[in-house]
Amino acid sequence: MTATLAYAAQDAITALGPMNIERREPGPDDVQIEILYCGVCHSDLHTARNEWKNTIYPSVPGHEIVGRVSAVGADVTRFKVGDIAGVGCMVDSCQHCASCADDLEQYCDNGFTGTYNGPAFGGDNTYGGYSSRIVVRQKFVLKITHDLDQLAAVSPLLCAGITTYSPLRQWGVQKGQKVGIVGLGGLGHMGVKIAAAMGAHVVLFTTSAGKAEDAKRMGAAEVVISKDAQAMAAHQGSFDFILNTVAAQHNLDPFIALLKRDCTMTLVGAPEHAHPSPSVFGLIFKRRRLGGSLIGGIRETQEMLDFCAEHGIVSDIEMIAMKDINAAYERMLKSDVKYRFVIDMATLGAGQ
Amino acid sequence: MTATLAYAAQDAITALGPMNIERREPGPDDVQIEILYCGVCHSDLHTARNEWKNTIYPSVPGHEIVGRVSAVGADVTRFKVGDIAGVGCMVDSCQHCASCADDLEQYCDNGFTGTYNGPAFGGDNTYGGYSSRIVVRQKFVLKITHDLDQLAAVSPLLCAGITTYSPLRQWGVQKGQKVGIVGLGGLGHMGVKIAAAMGAHVVLFTTSAGKAEDAKRMGAAEVVISKDAQAMAAHQGSFDFILNTVAAQHNLDPFIALLKRDCTMTLVGAPEHAHPSPSVFGLIFKRRRLGGSLIGGIRETQEMLDFCAEHGIVSDIEMIAMKDINAAYERMLKSDVKYRFVIDMATLGAGQ
Ligand SMILES: [Zn+2]
Ligand SMILES: [Zn+2]
Ligand SMILES: [Zn+2]
Ligand SMILES: [Zn+2]
Repeated sequence: MTATLAYAAQDAITALGPMNIERREPGPDDVQIEILYCGVCHSDLHTARNEWKNTIYPSVPGHEIVGRVSAVGADVTRFKVGDIAGVGCMVDSCQHCASCADDLEQYCDNGFTGTYNGPAFGGDNTYGGYSSRIVVRQKFVLKITHDLDQLAAVSPLLCAGITTYSPLRQWGVQKGQKVGIVGLGGLGHMGVKIAAAMGAHVVLFTTSAGKAEDAKRMGAAEVVISKDAQAMAAHQGSFDFILNTVAAQHNLDPFIALLKRDCTMTLVGAPEHAHPSPSVFGLIFKRRRLGGSLIGGIRETQEMLDFCAEHGIVSDIEMIAMKDINAAYERMLKSDVKYRFVIDMATLGAGQ
Repeated sequence: MTATLAYAAQDAITALGPMNIERREPGPDDVQIEILYCGVCHSDLHTARNEWKNTIYPSVPGHEIVGRVSAVGADVTRFKVGDIAGVGCMVDSCQHCASCADDLEQYCDNGFTGTYNGPAFGGDNTYGGYSSRIVVRQKFVLKITHDLDQLAAVSPLLCAGITTYSPLRQWGVQKGQKVGIVGLGGLGHMGVKIAAAMGAHVVLFTTSAGKAEDAKRMGAAEVVISKDAQAMAAHQGSFDFILNTVAAQHNLDPFIALLKRDCTMTLVGAPEHAHPSPSVFGLIFKRRRLGGSLIGGIRETQEMLDFCAEHGIVSDIEMIAMKDINAAYERMLKSDVKYRFVIDMATLGAGQ
């Protein structure tokens, strides 16, 4: 075991602060990574504050990790010391269920092991990317081929990127289709960029008129203010797919009404308080579907990273120092971030 | 125009009674049918009593029609006098939108013309099957190949049959799959028979233990009492498709939890009061989908009738006289029917 500096929540109400954790020595199949950057996901905040009532303390959040390989086990073939590597939301899964066999470890029948807050069913707690180093089995480590000066902005791809890429692929988004993205936050801004790169005609739905310019710069062909019933009505029954990234409670029906026959709106955010119950008529009358999607599998995450590298896609970020994480959480609660905070892990040892 | 005896609601609160309506003379493309039997659908009751706030009075319900052709127009090629024919929920549609082009007239962008209660957008009211005769354009008339002694029990196929057949086909139900049918009423009992004939392992979900025997006779391999949490848990994550025929308000989550990854529960009933909002986690964690489906297109209705004839499938019915329709509605409200009322139209002129 090696002592590793981290930033941890000790309970649900105390600010995060420095803490020494133990990381295992890399085993034969492990990759050890010195963390350069870690994106800040809403799940980090929910977990640090035990809002899902399942937090194991101390808790070290962070699952948008980019770093440099510092050691590899004897059986590791895909990475060597010095490589740039990424780690997302998962660090392990059972590897023998039907979902694992289909490279969909996020749906592992036995529960994947989260990068932080431990395995779903038993085992030790796991500590995430708010730390100087992580050790992960090779299968769950991603190759990063973006330019070195993009690495900070690459880190949010490991959660926000794959969470939007996976449903866009799963529901077959392709060139020329009309695709809606609801919400321009950490997830939504990645959804706009990725759907546009797939060749879709992207319409961004937002409640904030002030985000229109950013959305268009990111690739949206149109921006619709979702509170504007007339603007919404103009798009009725015209969408091939809608990706809804808004976790806050809201009425789904005005968006479902925008779908063509047989088309789907997929939710990637789960609200703390339930959305109003969607209208069954809205589903029945055009044979529409409401779906959900959870991050993405490891193979698909690599595909997404390669796709983003090829299309020059990274996240829009605000870099912060580790010590500013608590203030960053407060700003996230006000949606005051354009569009993802990323921690410069070089600041971890400083200014405590 | 020819005077035609019918049974009509004059307003939302008065019992249905006899009335003379006018039917058009058959035009070149029309088929005139002397009605032998008409099934009684919940929509008849909702419309007669203006529960959907869109009833045009006088209202003549009935859209599960089987009869004998008594005249055909000059351009009619598919029917001749004496043929047995059926009419379902639709008697016309625009014929030029994308949905009509796809033989999905039920989703016509311009609104199909209902067999009763008129076209969705303008035009005269239409009068349904609680009448001695109907005139319908050839395209919307179905061929019936069942044995003559089955005709009464065939009539419910025109709405209850196609409403369940269509989603079972649309979501690709096939031999060996595990398929759930929720509710054993007019729709559900057809769903059980059809899914079983498709080769599925059918599990019927009901709140009434007393229906188990009937369900098994109809083809269900298993019956689960949906209020029994332990029995439900035993089926978690195991279904390829669930067809939910229950229109009464109920919690969808226990059923969604039974679906395999990537699988769908489709609703064919719309509740008067919204179901509790389905859990987004239930959708996200297995990439599950919630869908809706409305009756079926004319081509598919013919396919369903042929499929049912080939597999010996008809509805379980209770035959009633026309004058007993008001009492039948009261029994339907108590779910006291096994499993569909069918009006013997020979009784229309009698006992008024
Ligand atoms: Zn995340
Ligand atoms: Zn697994
Ligand atoms: Zn009906
Ligand atoms: Zn049409």
